[in-house]
Amino acid sequence: MQNETVAKKPHVVIVGAGFGGIRTARALAKNDVKITLIDKYNYHLFQPLLYQVATAGLSVDDIAYPVRAIFRDQKNVDFRLAEVSNVDFETKVVTMNTGQISYDYLVVAAGGMTNYFGMASMEKNGFGMKTLDESVEIRNHVLRMFELAAHERDADKRRALLTFVIVGGGPTGVESAGALSELIYHVMVKEYHNMNFKEVRIMLVEASDKLLATMPEELRDITVETLIRKHVEVRMCVQVTEYDGQRMSLKGGEVIPTYTVIWAAGVKANNLIDTLDVEQASMRRAVVNEYLQLPTRPEVFIIGDAAHCMQGERPLPMVAPVAMQQADATAKNIRNIIRGKELKKFVYKEMGNMATIGRNAAVVHMGKFKTHGFFAWAIWSFVHILRLIDFRNRAVVFVKWMWDYLVYERVVRIITRQ
Amino acid sequence: MQNETVAKKPHVVIVGAGFGGIRTARALAKNDVKITLIDKYNYHLFQPLLYQVATAGLSVDDIAYPVRAIFRDQKNVDFRLAEVSNVDFETKVVTMNTGQISYDYLVVAAGGMTNYFGMASMEKNGFGMKTLDESVEIRNHVLRMFELAAHERDADKRRALLTFVIVGGGPTGVESAGALSELIYHVMVKEYHNMNFKEVRIMLVEASDKLLATMPEELRDITVETLIRKHVEVRMCVQVTEYDGQRMSLKGGEVIPTYTVIWAAGVKANNLIDTLDVEQASMRRAVVNEYLQLPTRPEVFIIGDAAHCMQGERPLPMVAPVAMQQADATAKNIRNIIRGKELKKFVYKEMGNMATIGRNAAVVHMGKFKTHGFFAWAIWSFVHILRLIDFRNRAVVFVKWMWDYLVYERVVRIITRQ
Repeated sequence: MQNETVAKKPHVVIVGAGFGGIRTARALAKNDVKITLIDKYNYHLFQPLLYQVATAGLSVDDIAYPVRAIFRDQKNVDFRLAEVSNVDFETKVVTMNTGQISYDYLVVAAGGMTNYFGMASMEKNGFGMKTLDESVEIRNHVLRMFELAAHERDADKRRALLTFVIVGGGPTGVESAGALSELIYHVMVKEYHNMNFKEVRIMLVEASDKLLATMPEELRDITVETLIRKHVEVRMCVQVTEYDGQRMSLKGGEVIPTYTVIWAAGVKANNLIDTLDVEQASMRRAVVNEYLQLPTRPEVFIIGDAAHCMQGERPLPMVAPVAMQQADATAKNIRNIIRGKELKKFVYKEMGNMATIGRNAAVVHMGKFKTHGFFAWAIWSFVHILRLIDFRNRAVVFVKWMWDYLVYERVVRIITRQ
Repeated sequence: MQNETVAKKPHVVIVGAGFGGIRTARALAKNDVKITLIDKYNYHLFQPLLYQVATAGLSVDDIAYPVRAIFRDQKNVDFRLAEVSNVDFETKVVTMNTGQISYDYLVVAAGGMTNYFGMASMEKNGFGMKTLDESVEIRNHVLRMFELAAHERDADKRRALLTFVIVGGGPTGVESAGALSELIYHVMVKEYHNMNFKEVRIMLVEASDKLLATMPEELRDITVETLIRKHVEVRMCVQVTEYDGQRMSLKGGEVIPTYTVIWAAGVKANNLIDTLDVEQASMRRAVVNEYLQLPTRPEVFIIGDAAHCMQGERPLPMVAPVAMQQADATAKNIRNIIRGKELKKFVYKEMGNMATIGRNAAVVHMGKFKTHGFFAWAIWSFVHILRLIDFRNRAVVFVKWMWDYLVYERVVRIITRQ
């Protein structure tokens, strides 16, 4: 263990600089605590827009923001660029690849990762879309497929190069399919002068009989119609069984020749959870009590995708609003413990549900309010721009989007790795 | 050889999508020729601003623009994403990693690469700055050094982590040193709350007794003064002999402990030139005649960094304006050959010379006109913004710079690779 100075102030260690971790640290800004925020990346990632990077709509820098910049003026936060490998709950010590650090309170906000449900061939040959690197890889790969197809004389191979499959009919899958369609049919189509775009195929595959399952039926139907209008083949009740990098097999025997499968069909808690001495529930998430604490460790809180938190009959979904509300509740309860007050139970407030299906088409559902089309898109854009963390990012992203909207252009189409 | 359709129109093959290659293709837009433009990257790179990417001032996408977007409306251009490995001048066939292609006219605009002058230890352990990948590597590395130094308890190691050496006192070296100083002393200083910035050292090392050797003495002196004011140690008449990744040795025995050496001390022609049957001059450049042709091959033109073209006593420098003027001249002479007209000799028109030394400081020299300080910086910014290839890039870059200028912020400080 490094020779950490013994803090007189309570030391709050937060693992993860995602929505949950950042929000917890911010919520403790005015409290007399010392905070150490640990992440293996030096940036906070705006995950809901990863698909825009994957489809060349936004730059890497538009959705990633340096953690240190966020806490520039919050002097009680120290950042550590490190990967956490274990936590000893007994001695209250976090082990990182760069040393050890002890805590008085621990907030595990380690996030989620792609869940391939044990399909090893998909994990090896498909693309996940949970990290910035993965999104850039998808962008590079899709662009490369077009470059290869442009001079490919074998028609079967050319069609396989131009077949793009997205597995998973949740928001990520739907949004990716819509954005990919626009990249191809509004931008690429102008620049590959000798290509027959009838050979291009975008397929959205979903195992259940619903896209955007949490949306009301009316909006689900509109989603399917909008995707079909954008040349996306929507295949429901279809299960993928294997993918070798060139041929995707479906249950029932059908085979789709394709060089590109994006796997957006599942998420599970970060693998840090496996190394901890905690009870696990579905999707590897750690079971917490109604205060988001580990049942036997009141000084340890787990929030966001990493936490299995029941609300009524079902566990809360792995989405940013849950992590953010849990962060606020956790900061409040840490204060309550320090001040000897009673803890407050966490109750999630559902704020609504929205997904965009490409330029100027979206579906929005908030309580009794339902809308779709351009107005929904405007709401979606507004909410996401507001959520982007600081003014500068917002401004640049806004300028880009407006421009994009006006001229149907995507300038980010550079292949950054060979 | 692939079964290329025999073109009735003359086929112009251009190797390289840098300033020379792009300009040649554009200049032939209205001519009845078929053009194939080959590059191993799918983007045109605005090399003069690479140092801004390396110092977190600009995004990758700000200075890289897709080649296909540039030629969206120019239907006589076909782009091939490929690496050229050889050219058979006898049969007029270009060999790429993806196949072969024959030409009637060939323009080799393959550009330059870093010249380590045989210092293998520097090539292995130092950073070049000629490609987009290299610039991103420098950015990632510099940011990582700060993260490591922030929690390093060994004072000697910490100082070595915080020592940044730039070798080469030309425009690239000077501009990098100025930009690095501002990144560190205006941005980083606000975010590493517990760091002693007196331990940071930026060193600019030059073998000769001059920085910006082509500038008039008055502006050279101002350059040195400006750098010193920006906390850059300027070391002239100093030769580097070795660098093992942790210790840089100078001629005379001095050793500088440092984890970061950026090598901006030399350029040579692309290594494609080595594979061609051409006469080479200094810096590996191919000797061309006064029409920029290979002396024995009138249908082969070589331009830009790859060409050794004498102007009076000296070969022309390896800079963008030379490549661009040579591109115009080459396009004109290809037209002249096709139309049976006489060729025109190439004469370079020197337009001036400028370098920026960080925010609102630059030196500009055009004929008898000399200026420095904010006005020079404004000229420099204006010229570079105009030169950025299309409106969108210009607009976004401009917005970013203005913002940067106003708030001294750099948002691009994300470490994209582990």
